[in-house]
Amino acid sequence: MAVNLQPAQSLLNISGIRLASAAAGFYKDRKDVVLLEIAEGATTAAIFTKNSFCAAPVTLAKKHLATTPPRFLLINAGNANAGTGQAGMAAAEQSCHIVATQFNCQTEQILPFSTGVIGQLLPADLFSAIMPTLATELAEDQWLTAAKSIMTTDTILKGASEQIEIDGKTITLTGICKGSGMINPDMATLLAYVATDAAIETELLQDMLAQAAADSFNSITVDGDTSTNDSLVLIATGKSSVPITHHNAKDFQSALNKICQALAQMIIRDGEGATKLITIEVEAAHSRDEAREVAYTIAHSPLVKTALFASDPNWGRILAAIGRSKIDNLDISKVSVWLGDTPLLVAGEPAPSYTEEKGQYEMDKAEITIRTHLARGEKSARIWSNDLSYDYIKINAEYRS
Amino acid sequence: MAVNLQPAQSLLNISGIRLASAAAGFYKDRKDVVLLEIAEGATTAAIFTKNSFCAAPVTLAKKHLATTPPRFLLINAGNANAGTGQAGMAAAEQSCHIVATQFNCQTEQILPFSTGVIGQLLPADLFSAIMPTLATELAEDQWLTAAKSIMTTDTILKGASEQIEIDGKTITLTGICKGSGMINPDMATLLAYVATDAAIETELLQDMLAQAAADSFNSITVDGDTSTNDSLVLIATGKSSVPITHHNAKDFQSALNKICQALAQMIIRDGEGATKLITIEVEAAHSRDEAREVAYTIAHSPLVKTALFASDPNWGRILAAIGRSKIDNLDISKVSVWLGDTPLLVAGEPAPSYTEEKGQYEMDKAEITIRTHLARGEKSARIWSNDLSYDYIKINAEYRS
Repeated sequence: MAVNLQPAQSLLNISGIRLASAAAGFYKDRKDVVLLEIAEGATTAAIFTKNSFCAAPVTLAKKHLATTPPRFLLINAGNANAGTGQAGMAAAEQSCHIVATQFNCQTEQILPFSTGVIGQLLPADLFSAIMPTLATELAEDQWLTAAKSIMTTDTILKGASEQIEIDGKTITLTGICKGSGMINPDMATLLAYVATDAAIETELLQDMLAQAAADSFNSITVDGDTSTNDSLVLIATGKSSVPITHHNAKDFQSALNKICQALAQMIIRDGEGATKLITIEVEAAHSRDEAREVAYTIAHSPLVKTALFASDPNWGRILAAIGRSKIDNLDISKVSVWLGDTPLLVAGEPAPSYTEEKGQYEMDKAEITIRTHLARGEKSARIWSNDLSYDYIKINAEYRS
Repeated sequence: MAVNLQPAQSLLNISGIRLASAAAGFYKDRKDVVLLEIAEGATTAAIFTKNSFCAAPVTLAKKHLATTPPRFLLINAGNANAGTGQAGMAAAEQSCHIVATQFNCQTEQILPFSTGVIGQLLPADLFSAIMPTLATELAEDQWLTAAKSIMTTDTILKGASEQIEIDGKTITLTGICKGSGMINPDMATLLAYVATDAAIETELLQDMLAQAAADSFNSITVDGDTSTNDSLVLIATGKSSVPITHHNAKDFQSALNKICQALAQMIIRDGEGATKLITIEVEAAHSRDEAREVAYTIAHSPLVKTALFASDPNWGRILAAIGRSKIDNLDISKVSVWLGDTPLLVAGEPAPSYTEEKGQYEMDKAEITIRTHLARGEKSARIWSNDLSYDYIKINAEYRS
C-alpha cells in the first residue's frame, strides 16, 4: 500500500545504455536478473553501503570500479550474497566471469549487484544459462522491464526520467531503483541506477553523485537499518555530445538532484508497511550534522512512528525525541515545533493556538511535515521517512513463517 | 504478557521509610499517588533523565535535591507534567508546597515525580484533597501498595528486596519501579526508588548509585526512546546503624547492583508488547562505549527485533546491525557471533556446524542471548532488551483511538 505512488508508465532511453532482463530462477516465474551494457567511453561513479558486513558483490564492484571503467552491470534480485564469507566472494567473481566470457571482455569490466536473502550462497551457475538470451535481447528501451526485474518485495516499480537543455542541446537522465522491500526475508536493500547521455569526467561525476545522494538516498530512512547491499550508480555515456564541466555543472546537478530525490521518495512511499510519507525538517541548527541528528532521532523513534500510523496528534513524543537527540546543551526554551502549518511549541511553551482538532487535521493527512526550529544556528536538514504499522511487523516477522 | 515475570508477593520494610498511597483522580477508581516519607538524617542520591525536554518535576527535583536533603517524595501516575512550559513548573512547585504545608517543612525538602500523559498540565489541586489521608496512613509496610500505585500500563507490579550481612549486622534494601507502560498514551517512563537502612554519606551514595545504574537501568532498552521523566532515587536511612564506607563498600555495592539489575530486568520482561527477553553481550571491544554501541545497534534494529518476535533464526539481520554500528574500521573477518550456544559466524565465515534446526531451537526460547566477539580489545558490555511485536504497535498506536 504505497503512499500516493503510481508505477512509472514510461522511461526515456539513454543513448549508450542497453538493458536486458531474464528469469534465472532466483524467483519462480518472473524475471530476476538485469544486464546493463555501458557503451565504451562512458564514465561511471558509484556510492556503496558503509555497512562493515557489506555483501561480496559490493566489495567486488568497488574493486573492479577502481581498476577500469565498467562495461556491464549484472544485477540479480532474490539473493543478496551477503554474510557468505569467501565462498560468496568466489560466487561474485564467477558471476562477473560468466559475463566477461560472453562478451569477450575483462572480468574487471563487470560490476555485480545482488539483493535478496542474506546468508545464502549465490548460485552463480544460474547466470550461465541465461547469458546468451540476455546478450541477444539487449536494447535501449528496456528500462521499465529492468526496474520491474530488480524488485524484491517492492510493491511498485520505481523509475524516473528528466530532460534539460544545456548549451542549446537536450540532455536526458533516466534512473531506476528498488528498495524497502524484502524477500524471504531480508532487509530493505536499496539499489539505484541512473544514466545520462551527458559527457562528464569521472571525478566530477563522482562529486555530483555524492552531492545528489546527500539530499536524496542519504536522507531517507524506513527503519534505520543500513543494508549490506546498498549501491547507487551513475553513468554518463557522453552520447549527447554535451560536455558537463564545472562551468555548466549547476543545471545538470539540479536535474540529477531532482531525479535522485524522486527515486528516493519512491522508496519511502513504498516503505515496508508505510501508510504515510513523513518529511522532517530541522532548522536553525549549529551544523548540518546536528540538524540531521535531530531529524533522524525523530524519524527513528518507534513512539513517533506509531503515533503517525495511528494519526494521533500525540506531539509530546516528538518533543521527547528532540530532547534525546545527541546534541549538546539544547536550550528547550528556544525550541519551536510545527506539525504541518500548526504550531505545537513556540519558544519552549505549548502553542496557545493549538487545539486537538487542529492536530488531528494535520495527522489525518497522508503526507505530513514535522518542522523543528532549534534557534541555535543557521544550518538545516530535511529527510523523509514513514510510519510504523502492523504491516511492518507482518512483513518482517511473518515472511518465513 | 510479561516474560517469565511474577508480581512481587512481599517486600521488606526499611526502617526510616514510611509510605502511603491514595486515589487522587488521575485514573478512575485506583490509587495513583504515593507519598514516601524519609526519616531525618537520611542521605539521598538520584539519577535523572538526560532528555533535554525533561519534565517540570525532574527539573524541580534536581533543584531541590541540590539544596537540602529531602524528607518526602511525592509521586503521581497518570500525568507526566512534561512539555507543559512555565505553567507545568508552577504546578510542580504547587505540588511540593501542598506537602510542605501538611508536614510543616520547607518546600525544598519535597521531591516531585510524575509519569503519564505528556503535554497536559498537571492539576496539582488534586493533591490537596488527599494529603490529610496520606499523612494519616503513612506506614513502613506499604511498599507493595506503592509499587502498584505508580504503575501506568505496566502489567505487573515491580519490586525486590535484598538482605546482606555487613560487620555482623543485617542490612536491608528494598526497591520498587515502574516502566515500559504508557497511558492515554505516553512513552515508557521509568521511575525507580530504592531504600536501605545502611548509613552512607551522600557522595559515596551517589557514586554507588551511578555504578549500579550503569549495569542495570542504563543497560536496558525497549525502543530507544529515553523518556522525559526517568528518575532513579536511592535513600540510605542509617537506621540499621551500619555505616558503609569505602572499606566495606564492596558488599553493599554488590547487593545494590543485584537489586537494581532485578528491577531493570522486570521492566524489560514487562516491556510493551514483549514476548521475549533478549540479553545482548558484546566482547573483545576496544572500549566499553564501543561494546555498548554495537549492543544497542543490535537491540534497536527493528529487523532484528521482528525476527526475534517471529522466532525466525534470520541471523543475517544481526550481522547487518553489527556492520552498521558506528565503530571505526571493523574487521569483519575477525568477528564471531553466537545465538545462545549456537555459533552463527566464526571469524567472519558462516559457522560450518550451523543448521536451521539449531537456529530454530535457540529462537524458540523465551529468553535469548546474542553474543558477539569483535576480536579487537578487552572490553565488554551486556544489555537487555526485548522483541518488537504487534502488541507494541497496538499499545502505542491504538491507545487513544
